[in-house]
Amino acid sequence: MEIIFLGTGAGIPSPLRNVSSLALLLPEYQGETWLFDCGEATQHHILSSPVRLTKITRIWITHLHGDHIYGLPGLLGSRSFQGAETPLTVYGPRGIQTFIETTLQTSYTYLRYPLNIVEIEDHMQITVPPFDVTIRLLEHGIPSYGYRLEEHPQPGTLNAKKLLADGLPPGPLYQSLKRGETITLPDGRTFCGKDYLSTPKLGKIISILGDTRFTEASIQLAEQANLLIHESTYGAGQESLAFQHHHATCTQAAEVALRAGAKSLILNHISSRFTDETATDLITSAQNIFPQTQLAHDGYSYTIY
Amino acid sequence: MEIIFLGTGAGIPSPLRNVSSLALLLPEYQGETWLFDCGEATQHHILSSPVRLTKITRIWITHLHGDHIYGLPGLLGSRSFQGAETPLTVYGPRGIQTFIETTLQTSYTYLRYPLNIVEIEDHMQITVPPFDVTIRLLEHGIPSYGYRLEEHPQPGTLNAKKLLADGLPPGPLYQSLKRGETITLPDGRTFCGKDYLSTPKLGKIISILGDTRFTEASIQLAEQANLLIHESTYGAGQESLAFQHHHATCTQAAEVALRAGAKSLILNHISSRFTDETATDLITSAQNIFPQTQLAHDGYSYTIY
Repeated sequence: MEIIFLGTGAGIPSPLRNVSSLALLLPEYQGETWLFDCGEATQHHILSSPVRLTKITRIWITHLHGDHIYGLPGLLGSRSFQGAETPLTVYGPRGIQTFIETTLQTSYTYLRYPLNIVEIEDHMQITVPPFDVTIRLLEHGIPSYGYRLEEHPQPGTLNAKKLLADGLPPGPLYQSLKRGETITLPDGRTFCGKDYLSTPKLGKIISILGDTRFTEASIQLAEQANLLIHESTYGAGQESLAFQHHHATCTQAAEVALRAGAKSLILNHISSRFTDETATDLITSAQNIFPQTQLAHDGYSYTIY
Repeated sequence: MEIIFLGTGAGIPSPLRNVSSLALLLPEYQGETWLFDCGEATQHHILSSPVRLTKITRIWITHLHGDHIYGLPGLLGSRSFQGAETPLTVYGPRGIQTFIETTLQTSYTYLRYPLNIVEIEDHMQITVPPFDVTIRLLEHGIPSYGYRLEEHPQPGTLNAKKLLADGLPPGPLYQSLKRGETITLPDGRTFCGKDYLSTPKLGKIISILGDTRFTEASIQLAEQANLLIHESTYGAGQESLAFQHHHATCTQAAEVALRAGAKSLILNHISSRFTDETATDLITSAQNIFPQTQLAHDGYSYTIY
């Protein structure tokens, strides 16, 4: 699976960074794509990316600030214009339904595909294969949420060659063995599924958080995550400014990753006050606390192994 | 005055053309800027243009299709973020108020400047110096309007040198003469303002139309216009397709300019089916009917002399 950052800025678009959006591509799951946040001009940035609108099946909104949702109506409309007929579900805080329905209705936009809207709440758990999604309220002045995606473990594969050598030719019984069951043949021989299955593969854990101050809920969402994506609107030493504006610093993001035992951290939601050069200070400061830190930029692609 | 085309495409953004917006810059009137339509990512295109958000005082929406309004909430918010405190008025069809208020409210966006919203109707006349604006309903399936801007004529300038030579030194009486009045001095001498004023300068006429089929209202709005900006979603010979989709062809746009006695025509709202090369056919076909035709492209600047 691959994350593509479509917009990594904060508040308003700048020539360097667009407002918030990122795509999670799942080539191992029928090429499905999930989107997280959809700031204005997300569909424009998608034009020059490998993301296809028709492949987007779910959009997860962290909070309703304009830099995270103003690209939604256009993207929903263009997905229809491009011929998509498969359903799309949008998840977001209370108010997202009014926002979407009003913008589509007042602009006479009719979608050719079924659109579902789910308003989320703190502690909600949603299972949408291949993930279990846990939702937690963060701390941002307005309701802002974080998403923890736990990929379902993949069962071990059956060693058919060994089964054949042990005298069981392929047939319907193989399905029982795949489920780990023990079978007994009419001649009394028994086969235990576990003896023929490779070790199940653990699922990946990805934590994608909305704008937030440093908060315990972030640490819980990021526990043992393969990847944590955390905002970093402010730099090291700006904790009081960050608190005042309901945001976090790069070092607070690193602290979350460290305390959660995450494997890697990507800093996101970078203020336009930072140039390409000064933004490197964000990484340096964060890496002093959590070495596996990287900095997102528009177009940045990250593969989760 | 100068027109800058920010988005010249139709329906959805493409790598070549963004969705609709254009700016009218008025450096001769305190640098005021008026915007016509505001498709998604208009504020992004403004970033690389001479347009300043804080200078925009009026936004005129032709119709409520998404490719003409989805950039509004972001632009309104960013104008505030950039510190603007001067009022802004948005004009648009019925529904524009609900669209703006809902998008700003659901996204917790508070503007630091006064925002006025005026819902327009057919045959409305609005005087906002330096223009008289006439509004007419066009033909587009949903309510779509055209705007005719008539600049107020500029009064002639007073020939102070000649007045002095004729024996009237500068003083408060000059104001009466400037207004074309006749004055009589205590000594019986009379001075007629008209004798000392240069010819008044006629105002410019600019016609900016929303999406529309070929219709008589367009011709009325464009009568004797210095510049007509007309949609050209379809090419020559595609009249029946254009009619079916409530749009116009390049030759119909030229026909409007010809019958209106306009001085120049710019084709706008170009479908993404046209490449840079095939779009030149649109000009060629239109110029056969109306030679003073040009084709808009994103970033195109046109000065009205």
